[in-house]
Amino acid sequence: MYFAHEVLDHGFIRVIDYMGDDGAITQAARVSYGKGTRSVQNDAGLIRYLMRHQHTTPFEMCEVKFHVKLPIFVARQWIRHRTANVNEYSARYSILDREFYVPAPEQLAAQSRSNNQGRGTPLQGEEAARVLEILKTDSARAYDHYEEMLDDRGGKTGLSRELARMNLPASVYTQWYWKTDLHNLLHFVHLRGDSHAQYEIRAFADVMGKILADWVPITYAAFEDYRKHAVLLSGPALDCIRRMLAGEVVTQDESGMSKREWREFQAILKA
Amino acid sequence: MYFAHEVLDHGFIRVIDYMGDDGAITQAARVSYGKGTRSVQNDAGLIRYLMRHQHTTPFEMCEVKFHVKLPIFVARQWIRHRTANVNEYSARYSILDREFYVPAPEQLAAQSRSNNQGRGTPLQGEEAARVLEILKTDSARAYDHYEEMLDDRGGKTGLSRELARMNLPASVYTQWYWKTDLHNLLHFVHLRGDSHAQYEIRAFADVMGKILADWVPITYAAFEDYRKHAVLLSGPALDCIRRMLAGEVVTQDESGMSKREWREFQAILKA
Amino acid sequence: MYFAHEVLDHGFIRVIDYMGDDGAITQAARVSYGKGTRSVQNDAGLIRYLMRHQHTTPFEMCEVKFHVKLPIFVARQWIRHRTANVNEYSARYSILDREFYVPAPEQLAAQSRSNNQGRGTPLQGEEAARVLEILKTDSARAYDHYEEMLDDRGGKTGLSRELARMNLPASVYTQWYWKTDLHNLLHFVHLRGDSHAQYEIRAFADVMGKILADWVPITYAAFEDYRKHAVLLSGPALDCIRRMLAGEVVTQDESGMSKREWREFQAILKA
Amino acid sequence: MYFAHEVLDHGFIRVIDYMGDDGAITQAARVSYGKGTRSVQNDAGLIRYLMRHQHTTPFEMCEVKFHVKLPIFVARQWIRHRTANVNEYSARYSILDREFYVPAPEQLAAQSRSNNQGRGTPLQGEEAARVLEILKTDSARAYDHYEEMLDDRGGKTGLSRELARMNLPASVYTQWYWKTDLHNLLHFVHLRGDSHAQYEIRAFADVMGKILADWVPITYAAFEDYRKHAVLLSGPALDCIRRMLAGEVVTQDESGMSKREWREFQAILKA
Repeated sequence: MYFAHEVLDHGFIRVIDYMGDDGAITQAARVSYGKGTRSVQNDAGLIRYLMRHQHTTPFEMCEVKFHVKLPIFVARQWIRHRTANVNEYSARYSILDREFYVPAPEQLAAQSRSNNQGRGTPLQGEEAARVLEILKTDSARAYDHYEEMLDDRGGKTGLSRELARMNLPASVYTQWYWKTDLHNLLHFVHLRGDSHAQYEIRAFADVMGKILADWVPITYAAFEDYRKHAVLLSGPALDCIRRMLAGEVVTQDESGMSKREWREFQAILKA
Repeated sequence: MYFAHEVLDHGFIRVIDYMGDDGAITQAARVSYGKGTRSVQNDAGLIRYLMRHQHTTPFEMCEVKFHVKLPIFVARQWIRHRTANVNEYSARYSILDREFYVPAPEQLAAQSRSNNQGRGTPLQGEEAARVLEILKTDSARAYDHYEEMLDDRGGKTGLSRELARMNLPASVYTQWYWKTDLHNLLHFVHLRGDSHAQYEIRAFADVMGKILADWVPITYAAFEDYRKHAVLLSGPALDCIRRMLAGEVVTQDESGMSKREWREFQAILKA
Repeated sequence: MYFAHEVLDHGFIRVIDYMGDDGAITQAARVSYGKGTRSVQNDAGLIRYLMRHQHTTPFEMCEVKFHVKLPIFVARQWIRHRTANVNEYSARYSILDREFYVPAPEQLAAQSRSNNQGRGTPLQGEEAARVLEILKTDSARAYDHYEEMLDDRGGKTGLSRELARMNLPASVYTQWYWKTDLHNLLHFVHLRGDSHAQYEIRAFADVMGKILADWVPITYAAFEDYRKHAVLLSGPALDCIRRMLAGEVVTQDESGMSKREWREFQAILKA
Repeated sequence: MYFAHEVLDHGFIRVIDYMGDDGAITQAARVSYGKGTRSVQNDAGLIRYLMRHQHTTPFEMCEVKFHVKLPIFVARQWIRHRTANVNEYSARYSILDREFYVPAPEQLAAQSRSNNQGRGTPLQGEEAARVLEILKTDSARAYDHYEEMLDDRGGKTGLSRELARMNLPASVYTQWYWKTDLHNLLHFVHLRGDSHAQYEIRAFADVMGKILADWVPITYAAFEDYRKHAVLLSGPALDCIRRMLAGEVVTQDESGMSKREWREFQAILKA
């Protein structure tokens, strides 16, 4: 678990330390629920029960600390998860390395037409080449200028680091220690590993999923069944399913759902 | 570190697991502050610098989990520290043990006259004996009644556990797993180990202090100098000290402080 | 909204202040999602979209502060919701009132046989009468003793308040100011208004539901559809539904679910 | 309070809504501390008492929501304050404006020689001119390229917004709604208004200070005395002061402090 998993072109995730495992979760649950846990015979059954019924506190009993190297625009999404501890490399004190994220050609995607948030098909030919050229030359020039502004040799004063850094693009890599409990980590992996998440943060969430499968295999399997592959079905949607299972043909008009909801509902049933 | 430390008459604190140590703090600080930490040669110097300047995030990189047995009225104060993970023994599912806190005679204190919050001198003679008699017989009777209400034998139905428990006094013992990071634990030890804290929670905070001195000795020594034995000196108070050190005799009238503040200031200077 | 809603025998909930409304949620969402919100024409559609897709941060833009009077055993469950601000009446400084929760006869429930957590049918006849007698006489006696221990007249010293309180049962009423954001309040109402929650805290959650229906009617209606009446369907359960809708007869053996999960799944389909 | 306060070259802070005031703090404190607050006659005395003794929960009873426009490198420091609610303009959905922070000449500071974190004297002459030229031309070019990469007219596909944004420098402006309670806001103003904070975030903290002086004047005055102008004096430093006030001449050697601490101590006494 402790080796560095490569992510994107220059990033990585490495486990620094952890506390607890599947056993620590059932240990905590058995204290909380006491006799209530006797009817669930084994650890796997208990963990699956806890996950299914969203009894989240036993999962908070495990903790893990990562060393992560990631582009700043990914760090900005990541930090929105507030229930975690962070120590980031400070560009006020230190000088950032010459490392920038440049997407692989298949990730150089168009703005999606149907989804304001997502990506469409990859750019092609000259347009793709031009975008890659912009990304590469702009970041190289920005780093040259960063060094030039910091330079305090030969009679120059040198701009302060805290100011010089602001000219670097958001594709520059930073790094941090990030520590969180297992419950919040699963939430992170769920949200950021989702198909609607930006590819670049999903790449990190996917690696975390693999680390979780090693570290807490029972919990991670339960997570896949009851979170990752689960759907939240609204009251009206559940009502429709009951009617459909009873043989009724239900249309959107009779469903109590808007057109958009109905479309989402159909996608769930067929996927 | 893993053995149970006895606290009060039936309570204990036991470390279940921990993550990190003094070295993990400096490791995180050196990532954050980079070159900024070079001038501080050794780990002890760096930890003392971080503590003195309230750079708190590196201390969040350590985590510890305790198993604690404590009276409910102590648990109610303790739980006010929100940045922690808790799994408590649930009296909805399980039956509480016949264990109640009864103070030692020297802790059977009068209401303080000067301090609305604190304790005065211990009760004496008949009054003390009467109080102890009340505490012992009431808790014994409450537990007898608890068992009687739960009893579902001999044709009786038995009251639900979640209701029966509400007749037990707040001196009954509960237990929980409590997990927190080192920064928040130091804050807990600082507030709850303070002379204004209620004796019964202070007894737990003091044991935690001893555990900390074993686990993170450099950090704990820094905590003693820069938190436990430190004082927050207001702007006006600092101004008075400067004038006094310059030879001026400052009175309360000329201090810019209220009578109460002045009294507190005098206590700081003389203690 | 500002009048006191009575809850249980001596409790209440009163809104002290609030900030924001349905409009504040869409205002924040339109800043966050910008052009992404244009396709959703109106506020109700946007709020329902946010709730359905668990975009929770816009709901955090509303805040509300309650004054609540509640029994201590309810307060102990309530305080587990950590993302809130609390100022509780302190029995270290002040003297508690002679007010105890005594359940109405129809709430004097037996321990459930099928559910370790819940309540079964109400106690009857002599057993019910005996339980009520215990609850009433024990709390009356405890309060008499509380006053006796505190008494500092006629040559007595008087026990400190912080100690005397610990002899009172968990059915005694306390009060607090409790302030939280709308997202966390909805989570509270969801968990504590659930049929598995203890009746006494559910009584408070239900009143909050009514307050929410007044304060943020669009949000509350969306909450009912997408949280309160919604179900989380696991991957295997969703797969079964697809097969059943395709005409297949699925049994527990072929479902990939345990017996317990299958029973829960059947209950969802029929309820 | 509701008008936009200009900050830096294109930024602003505007209060959108707030809840509570000085009176709400004393109202909460009087519930918590009950009789304990009687001896403090008036609201100002009580608020000063609470601030002095770090009774922080009553200050959490006030809440405020801001609309802020700020450069991304400032936003990255700001977001480290986790106890707040945020809705940020999303550059995945929307297109950022052509607005970049360019420091005023007097803020174009050199790296401090004595302090790894801070700024030294402003750059002069050609060096200053060259830095300004770099900042202006690089940001203008980056925005031109941003528009070029997004362009989907004339047979072009257009890069997705979520990717195109990563080529923009950290000096580009973003905006958000930011909501927090008064206790956490004071902490923010204390840390980010400190002389060691980066000038650009200090500019925002200073405006917040002015807003606070309008909104909660008693609280803000207490904050100035007991936080802003206060110092945390270590145990050894307090001991030195006592000895010095008793007429002793104390040297660093006899102080129990390191050279660095002694220097900091001398600075406190003389400032």
